[in-house]
Amino acid sequence: MKATSQALQARGIVEPTLVLDEAQAVRNIERMVGKARAAGVALRPHFKTHQSAAVGELFRVRGVRAITVSSLPMASYFAAHGWDDIGVAIPVNVRALATINELAQRVRLTLLVESVAAVAALAAGLAQEVALWLEIDPGYGRSGVAYDAPAEALAVAQAIVAAPHCRFAGLLAHAGQSYAARTPAGIAAVHTQSLTRLRQVQAYLQAHGIAPCPISVGDTPTCSVMDDFPGVAELRPGNFVFYDLMQVQIGACSSEEIAVAVACPIIARYPQRGQVVVHGGAVHFSKEALVVEPGRVVYGYPTTMRDGRFGPALTQAPLVSLSQEHGILNLPAELLGPLALGDLLLIFPVHSCLTVNLMRR
Amino acid sequence: MKATSQALQARGIVEPTLVLDEAQAVRNIERMVGKARAAGVALRPHFKTHQSAAVGELFRVRGVRAITVSSLPMASYFAAHGWDDIGVAIPVNVRALATINELAQRVRLTLLVESVAAVAALAAGLAQEVALWLEIDPGYGRSGVAYDAPAEALAVAQAIVAAPHCRFAGLLAHAGQSYAARTPAGIAAVHTQSLTRLRQVQAYLQAHGIAPCPISVGDTPTCSVMDDFPGVAELRPGNFVFYDLMQVQIGACSSEEIAVAVACPIIARYPQRGQVVVHGGAVHFSKEALVVEPGRVVYGYPTTMRDGRFGPALTQAPLVSLSQEHGILNLPAELLGPLALGDLLLIFPVHSCLTVNLMRR
Repeated sequence: MKATSQALQARGIVEPTLVLDEAQAVRNIERMVGKARAAGVALRPHFKTHQSAAVGELFRVRGVRAITVSSLPMASYFAAHGWDDIGVAIPVNVRALATINELAQRVRLTLLVESVAAVAALAAGLAQEVALWLEIDPGYGRSGVAYDAPAEALAVAQAIVAAPHCRFAGLLAHAGQSYAARTPAGIAAVHTQSLTRLRQVQAYLQAHGIAPCPISVGDTPTCSVMDDFPGVAELRPGNFVFYDLMQVQIGACSSEEIAVAVACPIIARYPQRGQVVVHGGAVHFSKEALVVEPGRVVYGYPTTMRDGRFGPALTQAPLVSLSQEHGILNLPAELLGPLALGDLLLIFPVHSCLTVNLMRR
Repeated sequence: MKATSQALQARGIVEPTLVLDEAQAVRNIERMVGKARAAGVALRPHFKTHQSAAVGELFRVRGVRAITVSSLPMASYFAAHGWDDIGVAIPVNVRALATINELAQRVRLTLLVESVAAVAALAAGLAQEVALWLEIDPGYGRSGVAYDAPAEALAVAQAIVAAPHCRFAGLLAHAGQSYAARTPAGIAAVHTQSLTRLRQVQAYLQAHGIAPCPISVGDTPTCSVMDDFPGVAELRPGNFVFYDLMQVQIGACSSEEIAVAVACPIIARYPQRGQVVVHGGAVHFSKEALVVEPGRVVYGYPTTMRDGRFGPALTQAPLVSLSQEHGILNLPAELLGPLALGDLLLIFPVHSCLTVNLMRR
């Protein structure tokens, strides 16, 4: 940890700072690009994880042309950075028609609907052509037409086909229930069940004249662990570019694959308590926590850095408490002993999307 | 809720937006200013809650001249907006001497130390005079010299007095254990215990020649509930300007006193599930949660707005789930029925400091 602190100091880091292992991020991108190509499916990566034009370029030079975002402001940001095929994978905000029409003038825009009411609101306000995904809930319980209500899905699809300025783009699902898995086998079970449900809805719609009816899926756990995506046209994973400790817990990656961490200066040492306090709190990491055993939560683990590459998570040194700006780590004496005030710890986050959202300013 | 949505629409709100009940914030400020004046203690409010020059002006016009912040970048921000008496209430980052010297040229700067090592690092690098608080941990367990180690506190105080460019500013404590209270009586017990402990350290230091030795305290629960601060020179509460649902749970305020909320558009309606989905997620609210009963967490409650003033929390309509951009609320049929896609819900946050930090961009 001392050598890591010196390497971070050599970069001139003073305040809590997001640090990227770019070689690992590139490796994560290339692996997913290669997997999609081998499986014969399109890759439309979700850019909510990094929200960065610079990281976006790492995708673009590897052939990615179509992206996913989770809000209209994020779509506007990437449109301003030259992306022209953008899908907004959150049920459309029908209050934002001015932004939608402005964006649709400039880019190939795909929006997400899950009700006839949303299609009607768009039909009444669109001045530009947009593509519309129909969201199917494959059992996650967040948003979308329930997978076991195909007649309802058909009604929305027919409304899309009939609406002016609207083009049917297919079915979209997010099998977020994969985040409750804890093993690759558990992830595979979610994957199989979710795809079966989606193909049943697809078959129903096709039997009623809605064709073609491509399927777009895309949570990081299933996209990381599975190699076959039968019946799927498009993958939309996002988190895989950086991964994080939650994905390690789910079984989607190893901690050696995490590509982002936060450098935090030590501001207090308590050898008797076996703790150090860092400047690094909820405004840097978010309050997302791992429940590592009943009643025990962890907000991060330190790692090491050598020649710019991160090592594995040091699980013997958990970040156990966060307030707004303070973080407390439990450190064994042999790790704590050599560390001084002002030394920098490099800490993996639990949820990289939320940490990067906080730290990217 | 429909009338509230219409009032928010009249303000032109489209995307998730932070909304302030300014009259209530002013009332909260005036109450705390009046309480400090009546108790004969100085008020140095913590500006980490709002991080806003505009909200700072609401304090300035009511006579506040000295402020608290929780990072050096925040100190630089308020220095740039005309504040010239700034205390940084987090153990000093000894790596940031360049920033410290630059700030200390422009403002009356108070930093926080809790070890001889920190004083030595400052003494070696300071080019400007700074005041130094000595942090005492009154039993919270985060940072500071333990209240029952007065000889250690004396050693740090003596190091401050002896160090070039350093002036001893007194004892500082944050009785964060008050956040575990659930009743005013529980808050009062923390307050009494914490002040007793601090006055014992104060007496020990004074008996060894460290005088004057003023005491600065300042968590929102005790400052909200208590009226007497025996032996205290200065109060540093922050959250009270807006309050939030956590402070209601602690017993520090009522929901009618909350002055900040997030307006979120409804993006999906599920009458059969008794739920709506809003565009409003962890990137807007943070993941801070209330445990309302074992195994049941809440991330927010809606409220109403009339003539710009917020109503009480609608606890029958909890925000029960958050992902990055989506929030799910459980709504009784009589509330859900009249609401349409695109209507705006106004939702109180669990922790206003973290929500405002996310939304202030």
